[in-house]
Amino acid sequence: MSPSAVDIKVQGDTAVTIPNPVDNNALAAWRKTGAVPTGTAAFSTSDMFKSPACFTRPKAKRWDHHLSLEAKSRKPSSLKGAAKFLSRPGMISLGGGLPSSETFPFEEMSIKVPRAPKFSEAETHVSGTTITAGKHDIKEGKSLFDLEVALNYGQSVGFAQMVRFVTEHTEIIHEPPYSDWYCCLTVGNTMAWDATLRIFCERGDYILTEEYAFASALETAAPLGIRIAAVKMDEQGLLPEDMDELLSNWDEKARGAAKPHLLYTVPSGQNPTGATQSAQRRQEVYKVCQRHDIFIVEDEPYYFLQMEPYKAGVPPPSSREEFLKVLLPSFLKIDVDGRVLRLESFSKVLSPGTRTGWIVGSEQIVERFARHFESSNQNPSGFSQLALFKLLDEEWGHAGYLDWLMHMRLYYTHRRDALLEACEKYLPREVTSWVPPSAGMFQWIEVPWKKHPGYAQGKSHAEIEEAIFLASVDRGALLSRGSWFRSDKHMAEDKMFFRATFAAAPTDKMQEAIKRFGDALRAEFGLKDAE
Amino acid sequence: MSPSAVDIKVQGDTAVTIPNPVDNNALAAWRKTGAVPTGTAAFSTSDMFKSPACFTRPKAKRWDHHLSLEAKSRKPSSLKGAAKFLSRPGMISLGGGLPSSETFPFEEMSIKVPRAPKFSEAETHVSGTTITAGKHDIKEGKSLFDLEVALNYGQSVGFAQMVRFVTEHTEIIHEPPYSDWYCCLTVGNTMAWDATLRIFCERGDYILTEEYAFASALETAAPLGIRIAAVKMDEQGLLPEDMDELLSNWDEKARGAAKPHLLYTVPSGQNPTGATQSAQRRQEVYKVCQRHDIFIVEDEPYYFLQMEPYKAGVPPPSSREEFLKVLLPSFLKIDVDGRVLRLESFSKVLSPGTRTGWIVGSEQIVERFARHFESSNQNPSGFSQLALFKLLDEEWGHAGYLDWLMHMRLYYTHRRDALLEACEKYLPREVTSWVPPSAGMFQWIEVPWKKHPGYAQGKSHAEIEEAIFLASVDRGALLSRGSWFRSDKHMAEDKMFFRATFAAAPTDKMQEAIKRFGDALRAEFGLKDAE
Repeated sequence: MSPSAVDIKVQGDTAVTIPNPVDNNALAAWRKTGAVPTGTAAFSTSDMFKSPACFTRPKAKRWDHHLSLEAKSRKPSSLKGAAKFLSRPGMISLGGGLPSSETFPFEEMSIKVPRAPKFSEAETHVSGTTITAGKHDIKEGKSLFDLEVALNYGQSVGFAQMVRFVTEHTEIIHEPPYSDWYCCLTVGNTMAWDATLRIFCERGDYILTEEYAFASALETAAPLGIRIAAVKMDEQGLLPEDMDELLSNWDEKARGAAKPHLLYTVPSGQNPTGATQSAQRRQEVYKVCQRHDIFIVEDEPYYFLQMEPYKAGVPPPSSREEFLKVLLPSFLKIDVDGRVLRLESFSKVLSPGTRTGWIVGSEQIVERFARHFESSNQNPSGFSQLALFKLLDEEWGHAGYLDWLMHMRLYYTHRRDALLEACEKYLPREVTSWVPPSAGMFQWIEVPWKKHPGYAQGKSHAEIEEAIFLASVDRGALLSRGSWFRSDKHMAEDKMFFRATFAAAPTDKMQEAIKRFGDALRAEFGLKDAE
Repeated sequence: MSPSAVDIKVQGDTAVTIPNPVDNNALAAWRKTGAVPTGTAAFSTSDMFKSPACFTRPKAKRWDHHLSLEAKSRKPSSLKGAAKFLSRPGMISLGGGLPSSETFPFEEMSIKVPRAPKFSEAETHVSGTTITAGKHDIKEGKSLFDLEVALNYGQSVGFAQMVRFVTEHTEIIHEPPYSDWYCCLTVGNTMAWDATLRIFCERGDYILTEEYAFASALETAAPLGIRIAAVKMDEQGLLPEDMDELLSNWDEKARGAAKPHLLYTVPSGQNPTGATQSAQRRQEVYKVCQRHDIFIVEDEPYYFLQMEPYKAGVPPPSSREEFLKVLLPSFLKIDVDGRVLRLESFSKVLSPGTRTGWIVGSEQIVERFARHFESSNQNPSGFSQLALFKLLDEEWGHAGYLDWLMHMRLYYTHRRDALLEACEKYLPREVTSWVPPSAGMFQWIEVPWKKHPGYAQGKSHAEIEEAIFLASVDRGALLSRGSWFRSDKHMAEDKMFFRATFAAAPTDKMQEAIKRFGDALRAEFGLKDAE
């Protein structure tokens, strides 16, 4: 990752800031200062697309002492090393086994998409626009991206066209406070997390995470022999004082492992608890991490599903500027050390099937991921990257994408409100309690299990949870059991929870399911039926 | 992976064979016996799509003793386990966090593709057809696959629609001789190979492979601490007697590791040597593997780029039936034990940017991969899977795809012939020799380096190889250095090779590059200029 782009971007010593991203014309004008490499498998880095202001900031710290043996042993690809000769004028390559695009049986790809800001399915049907990518659009001067490039091999950081978009988006939203931050496309946060564990951990290590955490994230760690040190939570997620205590009193002998050096956290709309860390909470957590030399992984699929407080009478943001202002600061935004790796995903805001996301972190760390992906998943699908580029860059631009994200915020606010209204209407308050979430897709419902008649008969937490779960299933409502998300299976379970999502089912079905769950609870706890 | 589909497919004890795949109508009729699950993230297995004949064969052996600690510790996802309740009538799920498709900003996707058998770019431009997938085509009865399903989460084996196609294709081409073979989609062979190493090996293990091997495959193994035991080759690739000797005389103490139990091989058009194992050679290699309890990974991206012998006057296959007959038997086809994992890719026959391939192996092994992918890359892009389904299943069918593969065979035959003619015309025969490849994309050119004037002056193999490489680069021709592919870097290098691909450059450029390489060789070896 060459620093040469710095020279292109910094004009003298004057820091030039990115123009207002709410105005696509201003962005287009600014972009003229840097070109996008459009060749087959062309090399690119975020440096080519960052605004000059970025380069005036200090560099990230180094994390060599946190890297695994596997990560430290990874060398750049010898074949890709030969690519440096390709830029010589007149060079003919019989080197790499890249197929010729004339053998690709795809002449065009079109997608029909909403025209901002008419985003609903019904509006798209009427006013949506069809965008077409041809095979040779680049050569024909029609576009910066085409099927010829998208359907061939690429670099593991992703195609330059998409690296540019996510780099600009990252700067618009997070403005990382150090200079050498980089983006690298991924095939989604699960793969990025699997790679993170292999890059930072050895078998036997402990990592820190919330006491309730995304089951798949835990199941990714378990077979690698990586163990969980669970940090207690409140309605704002991670408790910094508990984390500090856990680390300060770490007993290497008793644990049979060194003090953890990696924190995995979902700061916004945490899965499964729905908890969102406030700006102040994030600062406190960051400080504890600085104190104990902890590297932070923030997994943020729900970041843009932040909402107004429930029934607080706060109107949604009325402009893009206001939207940017009300977003909570990410760990990346407060990361003066470069100790944060941010996992970004299009799954919750565009669709999971794109299997495309990206990571943001310091040059040293992102370079290790690029090497890791080179020898594993390579890069996200060319169809996906091309469709995303046509939609996000060519059709919407950053301004339109922000409009879309505001639309998604409203959409999930309505869904959350519908679920909460159903909870208020149908759940027996004697045996349920909840905090309305301010981000994400999940409602976490606490059930005082010791009030269950089975408890007096000596039934276990697991048995009572199972009984309630099955009573609900029998009535045709499927919720998730809280114990599935317990990150340290050895810790005693004082409390009992069920997780309901407001993402998937239509509103009327969602209300019906909550009614059924309420009936199940009444039956299990021996309460009288709802009138 | 439930065996229930067996009941659906086996009618009494009568083995029904798959109808002639060269006839799409016959296939369509046969298909009516089994339905494709079309729900969001629907469960599917190859058993649903195999012909009844498959189930009459014996089962594969078990490989528990070959699995890594990581692979043995992997448990099924607890969240996906809850999916079994979803099939109950009337169930409403607030369980999984799957977004609703109304939030996907893609109403339609279209691709313009060739109509079989008019496959060239020029023909496609004139007679190609545009196929469209809508968001709700399944519900509207228009198709078995649509954007609503493709753009949501899926199972790690891939969407049922594509699992069906690759399962049928596998049966048509390979007819595995055991019953419980399964397919699982992958994001490409590099990821499949990375997963293979993690599923079968521990740090410190040795694996077997050809003495020259694909550099990226070696670079995937190295950081995992997996070492290479190199097997000698001739123009048919792996030498079974050398492999037998290597294994029979394995010295655990000297090597510091147990005898290898995994062979990685590219049987057809091997990268970089272009060697293709004959049918008999494959049988011999298989026998050595049986004798020494070796599990075989056949990486076969070039399988369908098999060609007629160079200038032997053999005409290309004149029908689909003949094409199927002349294909060399895969290891999968002779695998009575279920000791083969086949890595399949669309990269070389459709395009690398689909980032979609699949694996075939025994139920036990493929299930471990499905669990591995569940916690890493999940599944290939929905855009890719939908585009492939529309092209391969709905537009071409198996018959059209075979026609396409025959077209690709001819295309690469012409390219190989053009490269070979250039070699004959421009390379100095005193210092070059080669065997015309019968498959793949690569020409392996031997150079007798001890004839180089530098040799008498004490220059090393590496120095002379570098000098020739740079002399060629200086003249504007980039070839790959043989040493990049040396699988055991500790072995002395007796011979010197350069690799040229006939895949990438246009024919005239390819000939010009070979001329330049010839000039470089003449200059380096002090031969007189070509007249």
